[in-house]
Amino acid sequence: MLNISTDVLVYGQNKRARYISELKEFVRFSSISAQPQHNEDIQRCAAWLAGHLQKIGMERVAVMPTRGHPIVYAEKCHARGKPAVLIYGHYDVQPADPLGEWRLLPFEPVIRGDNLYARGASDDKGQLFTHVKALEAFLQSGQDLPVNVKCLFEGEEEIGSPNLPAFMIANQQILAADCAVISDTQIPAADQPAITYALRGSINFELEIIGQKRELHSGVFGGVIHNPLQALCEIISQLHDSAGHIHIPGFYDRLRRWDADERTYMKRAGPSDDKILRDAGAVKGWGEQGYSLYERVTIRPAITVSGIVGGYQGVGVKAAIPTRALAKLNFRLAPDQDPQEIDHLFRKYIERITPPGMQARIRTFTLSRPSLIDREHPALIAAARAYRHGFGVAPVFLRNGGTIPVVNLIQEILHIPAVLMGFGLPGDRIHGPNEKFHLPNFFKGIETSIRFLAEVSKWQRVSVL
Amino acid sequence: MLNISTDVLVYGQNKRARYISELKEFVRFSSISAQPQHNEDIQRCAAWLAGHLQKIGMERVAVMPTRGHPIVYAEKCHARGKPAVLIYGHYDVQPADPLGEWRLLPFEPVIRGDNLYARGASDDKGQLFTHVKALEAFLQSGQDLPVNVKCLFEGEEEIGSPNLPAFMIANQQILAADCAVISDTQIPAADQPAITYALRGSINFELEIIGQKRELHSGVFGGVIHNPLQALCEIISQLHDSAGHIHIPGFYDRLRRWDADERTYMKRAGPSDDKILRDAGAVKGWGEQGYSLYERVTIRPAITVSGIVGGYQGVGVKAAIPTRALAKLNFRLAPDQDPQEIDHLFRKYIERITPPGMQARIRTFTLSRPSLIDREHPALIAAARAYRHGFGVAPVFLRNGGTIPVVNLIQEILHIPAVLMGFGLPGDRIHGPNEKFHLPNFFKGIETSIRFLAEVSKWQRVSVL
Repeated sequence: MLNISTDVLVYGQNKRARYISELKEFVRFSSISAQPQHNEDIQRCAAWLAGHLQKIGMERVAVMPTRGHPIVYAEKCHARGKPAVLIYGHYDVQPADPLGEWRLLPFEPVIRGDNLYARGASDDKGQLFTHVKALEAFLQSGQDLPVNVKCLFEGEEEIGSPNLPAFMIANQQILAADCAVISDTQIPAADQPAITYALRGSINFELEIIGQKRELHSGVFGGVIHNPLQALCEIISQLHDSAGHIHIPGFYDRLRRWDADERTYMKRAGPSDDKILRDAGAVKGWGEQGYSLYERVTIRPAITVSGIVGGYQGVGVKAAIPTRALAKLNFRLAPDQDPQEIDHLFRKYIERITPPGMQARIRTFTLSRPSLIDREHPALIAAARAYRHGFGVAPVFLRNGGTIPVVNLIQEILHIPAVLMGFGLPGDRIHGPNEKFHLPNFFKGIETSIRFLAEVSKWQRVSVL
Repeated sequence: MLNISTDVLVYGQNKRARYISELKEFVRFSSISAQPQHNEDIQRCAAWLAGHLQKIGMERVAVMPTRGHPIVYAEKCHARGKPAVLIYGHYDVQPADPLGEWRLLPFEPVIRGDNLYARGASDDKGQLFTHVKALEAFLQSGQDLPVNVKCLFEGEEEIGSPNLPAFMIANQQILAADCAVISDTQIPAADQPAITYALRGSINFELEIIGQKRELHSGVFGGVIHNPLQALCEIISQLHDSAGHIHIPGFYDRLRRWDADERTYMKRAGPSDDKILRDAGAVKGWGEQGYSLYERVTIRPAITVSGIVGGYQGVGVKAAIPTRALAKLNFRLAPDQDPQEIDHLFRKYIERITPPGMQARIRTFTLSRPSLIDREHPALIAAARAYRHGFGVAPVFLRNGGTIPVVNLIQEILHIPAVLMGFGLPGDRIHGPNEKFHLPNFFKGIETSIRFLAEVSKWQRVSVL
């Protein structure tokens, strides 16, 4: 049996109305990290969150400055001989654009049916708040926390966590723990919880092709001067072969080959091709032959051209050969590809295929390794048990094609696994207009978090503290 | 000897300061025909030009509406038994983008050295104005015009003259003349005038590739959903083969093969490869093997990608698969390619190479035939004599890779040849930033225009009037 008093669970269940009204307070802050005009909202949101953690009984609560937006820290570490859990979340949100497509105001939360509508309701304020309310359930029902807990709530996740690595390195000892838990992912359905055990890495590039110095009249010079836009198209068309494979020499060299067992597991646990196409709203799949769509977005890398800018962009026509062209490329990497090495291979390949007379300039924006957590790790087993209690259903273990840089930072800097215990749903419209959070998941999430802490408390391993 | 009083020539020479300040007034109008926000500037520019023609003594001056931008018309037809000359020019200009690359403001004309810098200074306001000032020299020095003159100044040349054909058909009688003269081309150097006897045709297309309905997260869906930007790049890369030939089936079928005599003449009269590269400010040529650069831009067709818009265009990165991508394509056609047929071949080819799951939409903006004028025509001989007076040097006869749709319209609707008597220079940067006009050419142009009218007045052929 679990080592928690029913008081904790009952407390968690009885205060739902207040929990919702507090979550509404939390999402009212337009804490948009990407937009400087919201810097004060970020500050106010951080202060509110810190105050709230103080109020529920957390200790060493601090709004810790970084070179960018602050990190909210709190802990409660009195469980001697017990493991320590690091709870990560982020209180910043995506921009609310395009505003015209919101049916309600993004920072005026409204409940419709089972859903709370607001920017950040699901990503990540609502999910972050499940843990805060779980901690409160222990602390305010007269219980001690069954484990040591540290909270790290970031304000720059939506802009790529630029200051988090330095913060984690500088505060490695403070952040030391046995495992981390992050609720910032989606589960397949309200009645089907899931634990994400693999993420793809990513690199963002800008590839600029520079041609002749002056924009040239396409009548006078069309046919004798090569065109950077055309050269860019030719280069991009050489990133894949006709079978959808990526055509950069050495690109697949380090890619891990999965045995039949893993692929069978994935086939059983993961979404079907049809489900993925339905989720995408697309009629037809694309990509590498020989792999299911689920495999293509998880254990196979991908290159996405996310933008091209070049030449005349206005209405109608302009008869000119442009001087430069720029593409934005997003690479997704699978285990065990190394972002630094891929960066190098990409640069070498582009240098080789850039036509004579053209110059290629590459800027690398972010590098993030793929990550993988052993499905048999005690932290994942604890999370699976917690979900069974919280949702009444065993979770599936899924890979995710996206990238959450903090998962890697936690692995590489703190040397612990991060459990991705999501409470979001595929229809939450995160990053889009009319974002929402399914409130039954909020309540189930609180219970799951309570159960998770209790499960981890049973570990025999001595805490790092 | 020429039948003009020296008063006319002297008048033309003595008023240069005023001529320049008037030209500056003219180029101050941002009469950009492609951009609807400049519709009023177009109207104001047309009104100014009409007022100016009235002031110098032209008759029946009118701003004549079309379905688009108006045409400025003026005439002076009192030379009984003499030929009639139609002077064509255009008062609209190219967009000034990219604004950041102008060292001066595009619509704040400034003189530096021998050059007047402004959008439209060379293309075509400055060149158009040489004729207006030549007419003024006759009319204001107390002389009659030696021939009948009709001025047709268009406001839609830079967008392909969409309303000119209908206007010319409707006003065929008003526009009737023995020959037309157009100064909207470039001569090889300030001391080397040239008459353009061949132009390429052109077609402008927008090619839009449409993918899945929603913008998709490139982590979640990268690798399984095809990307319209990538598809567009792949399509564009299939427009040329690796030897620079255009790869549309049937594209070259109607292309005229020139005999050795013509190619020898071209080699002797035309610019060298080096000269063309120098003019372009480019280090390296490109294009079809087996042809000189001059041949490539004149007797060979070309396709230029003049713009691509798709996906995220802002600062930094956005990890998304866009829903659509658009390219602007400019085709240049050589005799005897037929624009309608090429339009059809292009559409058929794109349909064939568009990847499954993607939809291609093609919009054709302008269709213009290539044109060719007999080098022995009396109008060209008159122009050659005029140049010898105006520039002190005999002109060469050149082909030009550009397109002046009106040349064809004049040939096909009015059944007269159009003399392309250019005063621009290769370094004028027409269509690009920092456009300029070489003022000595302005003055020589005025004299050449005066001489041209005098030369035509010697024809024995009775006017159509």
